[in-house]
Amino acid sequence: MKARVHVMLKDGVLDPQGEAVRHALGTLGFEGVGGVRQGKVIDLDLDATDRTAAEARVREMCEKLLANTVIERYDIEIV
Amino acid sequence: MKARVHVMLKDGVLDPQGEAVRHALGTLGFEGVGGVRQGKVIDLDLDATDRTAAEARVREMCEKLLANTVIERYDIEIV
Repeated sequence: MKARVHVMLKDGVLDPQGEAVRHALGTLGFEGVGGVRQGKVIDLDLDATDRTAAEARVREMCEKLLANTVIERYDIEIV
Repeated sequence: MKARVHVMLKDGVLDPQGEAVRHALGTLGFEGVGGVRQGKVIDLDLDATDRTAAEARVREMCEKLLANTVIERYDIEIV
């Protein structure tokens, strides 16, 4: 079973990477780009066979390691 | 219109970030995690109203800035 986790900075948190990308796009002549937010995507191969159990396990991984929940939010897709 | 871009290292390319995550998960007692690959996710707010044009524009951004197509692949979702 595969899981995909997105970890993004929470909405109020300054995102310098996203800002740098927005600025660079402007410099390259790409107009009409409003906000840009950059985050991480983590693809995991899991041994689990039960979808619900896998999601709970990945949630625990997010809380303990993958995301800093003070400033980041995450979402989990099991595929 | 919003676009989400995923940029991942191509399959043959060594992914030290993913390896570090896999190792750390093992250390924390999460078993049954096979491969881990880590990439970037970039959310863009676009002024565009035409879906096809927006996708073409974002593809150009990927080729020119967002991805290093020698070692990375990208996919684009328009939402």
